[in-house]
Amino acid sequence: MKKIIRDPKLCEPAKDSLEEYKKKLHHITETIIESCFDKDSFTHINNEPIPSRAEIVNIINEFIKILFPGYFSKQKIEQYNLKYKIGLSVSNLFPRLAEQIIKSFRHECFRYDKPCEVCINKGYESALCLFEKIPELRKILATDVKATFDGDPAAKNYDEIIFSYPGIFAITVYRIAHELFKMEVPLIPRIMTEYAHSATGIDIHPGANIDERFAIDHGTGVVIGETTDIGKNVRLYQGVTLGALSLPKDAGERLKGVKRHPTLEDDVIVYSGTTILGGNTVIGKRAVIGGNVWLTKSVPPDTMVLLEEPKLNYKQKHQS
Amino acid sequence: MKKIIRDPKLCEPAKDSLEEYKKKLHHITETIIESCFDKDSFTHINNEPIPSRAEIVNIINEFIKILFPGYFSKQKIEQYNLKYKIGLSVSNLFPRLAEQIIKSFRHECFRYDKPCEVCINKGYESALCLFEKIPELRKILATDVKATFDGDPAAKNYDEIIFSYPGIFAITVYRIAHELFKMEVPLIPRIMTEYAHSATGIDIHPGANIDERFAIDHGTGVVIGETTDIGKNVRLYQGVTLGALSLPKDAGERLKGVKRHPTLEDDVIVYSGTTILGGNTVIGKRAVIGGNVWLTKSVPPDTMVLLEEPKLNYKQKHQS
Amino acid sequence: MKKIIRDPKLCEPAKDSLEEYKKKLHHITETIIESCFDKDSFTHINNEPIPSRAEIVNIINEFIKILFPGYFSKQKIEQYNLKYKIGLSVSNLFPRLAEQIIKSFRHECFRYDKPCEVCINKGYESALCLFEKIPELRKILATDVKATFDGDPAAKNYDEIIFSYPGIFAITVYRIAHELFKMEVPLIPRIMTEYAHSATGIDIHPGANIDERFAIDHGTGVVIGETTDIGKNVRLYQGVTLGALSLPKDAGERLKGVKRHPTLEDDVIVYSGTTILGGNTVIGKRAVIGGNVWLTKSVPPDTMVLLEEPKLNYKQKHQS
Repeated sequence: MKKIIRDPKLCEPAKDSLEEYKKKLHHITETIIESCFDKDSFTHINNEPIPSRAEIVNIINEFIKILFPGYFSKQKIEQYNLKYKIGLSVSNLFPRLAEQIIKSFRHECFRYDKPCEVCINKGYESALCLFEKIPELRKILATDVKATFDGDPAAKNYDEIIFSYPGIFAITVYRIAHELFKMEVPLIPRIMTEYAHSATGIDIHPGANIDERFAIDHGTGVVIGETTDIGKNVRLYQGVTLGALSLPKDAGERLKGVKRHPTLEDDVIVYSGTTILGGNTVIGKRAVIGGNVWLTKSVPPDTMVLLEEPKLNYKQKHQS
Repeated sequence: MKKIIRDPKLCEPAKDSLEEYKKKLHHITETIIESCFDKDSFTHINNEPIPSRAEIVNIINEFIKILFPGYFSKQKIEQYNLKYKIGLSVSNLFPRLAEQIIKSFRHECFRYDKPCEVCINKGYESALCLFEKIPELRKILATDVKATFDGDPAAKNYDEIIFSYPGIFAITVYRIAHELFKMEVPLIPRIMTEYAHSATGIDIHPGANIDERFAIDHGTGVVIGETTDIGKNVRLYQGVTLGALSLPKDAGERLKGVKRHPTLEDDVIVYSGTTILGGNTVIGKRAVIGGNVWLTKSVPPDTMVLLEEPKLNYKQKHQS
Repeated sequence: MKKIIRDPKLCEPAKDSLEEYKKKLHHITETIIESCFDKDSFTHINNEPIPSRAEIVNIINEFIKILFPGYFSKQKIEQYNLKYKIGLSVSNLFPRLAEQIIKSFRHECFRYDKPCEVCINKGYESALCLFEKIPELRKILATDVKATFDGDPAAKNYDEIIFSYPGIFAITVYRIAHELFKMEVPLIPRIMTEYAHSATGIDIHPGANIDERFAIDHGTGVVIGETTDIGKNVRLYQGVTLGALSLPKDAGERLKGVKRHPTLEDDVIVYSGTTILGGNTVIGKRAVIGGNVWLTKSVPPDTMVLLEEPKLNYKQKHQS
């Protein structure tokens, strides 16, 4: 039988070999440091300060507490303390957001050699502008929550949706990020929506334009591209892609900015697993697109598009 | 060349403009506070205490440590200290869980005007009842771990599955949440399964009924609806939806509680990307459903259903 | 009207019933402890120390800071302090990684009764070996970042990709885990890639072989199996599965180690939702596989494979 070693210190090798390992590590460290000057690898040294992903994630979560007061705060919010709590949250969050936006503008301006005072002012103004949008964001998010409830028999009440539905979380983060995207804040909008993507499996590019009463059910695998336009009261299910047509090899550079993703008009429903591609593809008002459909052409209003029932082969299993 | 600004304090604008920004922010804050009284937006003020999503996530993670003792704890569990460690964990976790359940009952009762003593007792009893289920939960989860191992050539051993397989994590959280769902605890079961959904991409509604030896491989994109019934020894792959047929516009309200999702009998396997819909759809014992199938009808036992091989177009690429 | 209870202490039941609950809990705790000796359930007691999932997640995140210096650190890295910062990071991280690897080797050796000194030395040497690979890892990851940028019109610059793209995160974690997998470190490689799977929805088995300039766009739902081989400059979109053919019931045991997953040669592109299965399936150089394709056969080089456009049924919706 083997002996069982319990003391974690016994994880250490004999003293001689430990010295040996340390020597080797020292040598390896030198090589790692050298590799930081390797032009072919990515290192962010001596550049302007860059925004912090971790801080942006914290900011988003604090921001959501202001958008839905009383839902996610540790302490109860009551009418008599509401004013102070919201006031404090806003005044704490404002400089943190402004700092990240400034860093983000300056990160670009380092490259393109613009004067930095502009960045500072743009940062403060963008942050102000985002806070100014809060009442409006609260209104449009309320329409999203209601639309989500209206179409889902499994939803017990509005609070359950705000608390736990990934669709509402992804849409909330998108709506915040989209405001910053419109102000041309670099890096931060995408960091925000990719955080929501990570938490929900729903990938909405901050550049997409999405009107009120937007609902996503289940949501894992949903992809909404940068130049997508979505009207009022649209509903998507899990695995729906609103994407670009296949791209020529050099597309990365050439197609930046061009409308490459589809348009969904008001009251459209798209069921699970469906892919709709192309900047010229328009899904007309009240159209319903069934599940697993692959669409690269426009669909007129009031149309239902279903995959012709694919042939299935049924066969008796061999008894084993 | 531009100057590089290193001092983070230099992020601040000139004093005059800073005053200006603060004034504007003050004004914006007032508007945000006002918007909290906007009837069209969602605010949770002056209501009964609500459960805390963050605390429920912590509770789930502590609970899993009791379900799989020794796997996730920081310190080693040994035979001689097992009794104290488990005892301490249970006695710490019990009041925390009870508090959340009480808050969750009370949150509903606020709405429907029932006496609160009932909520307190229901909360304590539900928490007790969940702890009472632990030995049984441990047994059924062991069958899930074994079934996962038996069907996966990439699995090295049981421990790897318990440590790292998303399928087992999602099933564990579902089994806990399902117990609370059966006790009609509001909000918490869904918060729990949506936490697992976020961590794994596997979306199991806490209302689904799932028997022993349940395995999900890879799992991203799996959706299992509220009224699904799943027999013993069923295996699902990534992207499988067990869902409802398309819903009329007013379905949200009308169909609450109706059986809308399919039934999978014992020993069924469903391969990746397949969608099975409808409350009357029954997949018979030992049936195997291939990948990418779209099924809205029942399948008899011992049947294999495969998509008829779809025609593919092969063409030589233009040489560029 | 009901009275509103605000004091959280009022969550407690009357003293008598509290005593009652405590008594019941005491009894339940005994049963839970007993169940830890149930041979049918999983308990990890009195075994060798096991690696800690939480610590491995921390290690991965610290490791990434060394792979992309200056991007994710809280403080700025500058040329004059680079040496100290990287040096400190490496010397802090090395023993933490070595400890987890030793625990992981020892966890297996407990089972197979090998002497533990071997585990300690193997642990230190594997950790050294991983650090030694850092310059090489940095180079290959730079090719992945560039390939991601080259094919994505929505990418604004390299930094955005490093900061926020889930594809790059999943590939980075895979490349680290793959090195440990090649050294036959147990448990840890899979814990690492499942952490990335959880964060991104991209499930790459650490055993897969993937060459340089690998890009995954969007990525949710991607599955890359254990014995997959991928050449240079390959691009995958969301929902692509590189998997095994359907398995006989006893496959779990029999097929461990056999090549079960496909080979993608250089310059292949696979669009969203496509499934490619089987260990004998080879996708030739420069082939392009369209979206939603289900492939179980090889494809010659320079070929484009598209799903024959499936028939869609268009019908006018009934006016309601």
